[in-house]
Amino acid sequence: MPATSPWLARGNAAPHRFHRLRPPGPFRLESGASLPELEIACETWGEPPPASDGAILIAPALSADAHAAGWGGSPQSAVDGFGAEEQRRSRGGLGWWDPLIGPGKAFDTDRHYVICMSLLGGCGGTTGPLSGNPATGRPYGPDFPLVTVGDLVRAARAGLQELGIRRLAGIAGGSLGGMQGLEWAAAFPDEIDAVIAVASTAALSAQGIGWNWIARRAILGDPDFHGGRYAGRGVRPVRGLATARMLGHLTYLSAPGMEAKFGRNLQDRAAVSGRLEAADFQVESYLRHQAAAFNRRFDANAYLRLSWALTRFDLGARHADGDLARAVARFRCRTLLLSFSSDWLYPPGASRALERALAAAGKQVLHHEIQTTYGHDSFLLEAGRMTPLIRRFLSRRAGKSVR
Amino acid sequence: MPATSPWLARGNAAPHRFHRLRPPGPFRLESGASLPELEIACETWGEPPPASDGAILIAPALSADAHAAGWGGSPQSAVDGFGAEEQRRSRGGLGWWDPLIGPGKAFDTDRHYVICMSLLGGCGGTTGPLSGNPATGRPYGPDFPLVTVGDLVRAARAGLQELGIRRLAGIAGGSLGGMQGLEWAAAFPDEIDAVIAVASTAALSAQGIGWNWIARRAILGDPDFHGGRYAGRGVRPVRGLATARMLGHLTYLSAPGMEAKFGRNLQDRAAVSGRLEAADFQVESYLRHQAAAFNRRFDANAYLRLSWALTRFDLGARHADGDLARAVARFRCRTLLLSFSSDWLYPPGASRALERALAAAGKQVLHHEIQTTYGHDSFLLEAGRMTPLIRRFLSRRAGKSVR
Repeated sequence: MPATSPWLARGNAAPHRFHRLRPPGPFRLESGASLPELEIACETWGEPPPASDGAILIAPALSADAHAAGWGGSPQSAVDGFGAEEQRRSRGGLGWWDPLIGPGKAFDTDRHYVICMSLLGGCGGTTGPLSGNPATGRPYGPDFPLVTVGDLVRAARAGLQELGIRRLAGIAGGSLGGMQGLEWAAAFPDEIDAVIAVASTAALSAQGIGWNWIARRAILGDPDFHGGRYAGRGVRPVRGLATARMLGHLTYLSAPGMEAKFGRNLQDRAAVSGRLEAADFQVESYLRHQAAAFNRRFDANAYLRLSWALTRFDLGARHADGDLARAVARFRCRTLLLSFSSDWLYPPGASRALERALAAAGKQVLHHEIQTTYGHDSFLLEAGRMTPLIRRFLSRRAGKSVR
Repeated sequence: MPATSPWLARGNAAPHRFHRLRPPGPFRLESGASLPELEIACETWGEPPPASDGAILIAPALSADAHAAGWGGSPQSAVDGFGAEEQRRSRGGLGWWDPLIGPGKAFDTDRHYVICMSLLGGCGGTTGPLSGNPATGRPYGPDFPLVTVGDLVRAARAGLQELGIRRLAGIAGGSLGGMQGLEWAAAFPDEIDAVIAVASTAALSAQGIGWNWIARRAILGDPDFHGGRYAGRGVRPVRGLATARMLGHLTYLSAPGMEAKFGRNLQDRAAVSGRLEAADFQVESYLRHQAAAFNRRFDANAYLRLSWALTRFDLGARHADGDLARAVARFRCRTLLLSFSSDWLYPPGASRALERALAAAGKQVLHHEIQTTYGHDSFLLEAGRMTPLIRRFLSRRAGKSVR
């Protein structure tokens, strides 16, 4: 039992609190569509200001949710069979950024009020395709509108207002989470002091767009997708979502990392089988397992929406007709960029380009490229190397030295 | 009309000859299965020895066929609607390695008898899943056995014997084609003088295994696959094959190359649409087009077999219990390895490892890493840079200087 270990007790972010936030509706989307109701699944750690040094918002990546730290999933993220239950099984219930959130950790819950909310349009308990559509009394399913990264940010902002938070000491996230931080800094520059964008970018590369396109096509083309109305037919597009997750997963790893982890090792056999369907290699078996686990916890309509938002995000296009330098000139916060040498999906070069744009605009920016073979997944796996960099960056704000 | 251009007439490998080779059966596979008949679609350019300096075999990659050079596809590669017709449309009928094969080119048809045969188990006119099964009178379909790279080599060797060729001045190929050259050198060391392996490897990486696994799963999981018996039902697993081709295609390009070619450019529109299914970006539209074109020319059962053979090939495992150095000690030929700096699927490091193994075994080996952004596709696109390297390598054999 984890609670009996003094080391774990010291590191554990608990007690965390669950919140179901209900900003007054309707919530208007950038597309012009509007949601009559908005509910947000939220978890918090530490004490709100003024009992602490300020609030830090953790923005989730595509497949993450409000349960960023501590043991046990949020009861609110268990919607229609997805969420907490599978997380408990797959991660032993520990939050997805637990190594970074807690007393004495990078996001120090002794000093900060740390907040994380599941994404709009996702399946982590915040309003999305699995939520009830007030107009019909049934889940939205494919009728849930498309959302943008701008919508994700404004939904989170509405949630913060319900918590009484009007200003953030920082917003931090990896991948799609980092995009939210950058969007926030450009859209609401007077409301945040610092952005920490990890393994992220101001706009996804052509290659990244391509991977996401294939993933979405695989889901849309699955005969069990039924135009998104699979729930009513008692099926789910498990094959399409499996393809999407497996190829996503490969893009999160690096070739050298995979060589070290799997190589050409066989799975539970001495020789390659003569069967076409067999997962002879460890890497094949691993991908199959990942696909099955993801299918147990994620909804296809939600996946489609977040993948779409991810590829359509373009900070420069949104705020300055494609001119990144002018877009980041809107920032009034300090920015910390962390990238990983083997991350080819959100490569260090994208962070460097952002660093240059911010520096050219006279903004305070720090960029560290961490050497590692874990690829894009490093933002979940390299907590040890990220911690001192984040702590130093956050403590500078308060004019204090690092402990 | 191409024939009216003096420049094209000079460079054209025509006249080429079509051959339908029928080695005496049965043809026994490494799995123990056996094919009662073997037919091979073959094209040749130049004159057989002794009227020339020797024969060079061009080994196709996964999606290529016997039509390596010159205008117009082989009539024999048009089987069941696949092959020549689509090639004529998609490439204007020019062979897939035409820039390298012809008078004065890298594989100089004034000096060499150049031979290319469609792959066993493929759909380019050589015996494969689309061929008639003598036992039933109907196409093999999924009853066609699995094949290995060793089987591909032995089938080609049987074809050569029908042409009266007992010894090769060289064998050359890219990707899976390079694997065939390496296998040939280890399996039949006394029958070849030189191997040219371009963008190839002695064994695919864990990442490469992963991509191929996802591609095969997408086909196997397509409800229109019907266990491979789709032909009898009047359908084809077009969605699965589309996924396989699109993801394959992305692995053939490099991220910088894609950034230069596509960036985030939109396709025929001024702004991102608000539609989930829309191919807003050029890269999305391009992938969709590639998938459709591939579906018109390739058979899913063939794709599965060649993808399987590709991932299961391991030169060291096949010839020396996993010891690459001992496996290449069998070589009695010179080896030229060409790799491309931006090829992350068959990375230069794999060629360097092979180079080291060959050098350690005291073999003659040359390795050139060509700087380019075209990724794995470079083996089809960098003919200009490859030509002098190949010509110099081949002319050294004859003790002549390069023209």
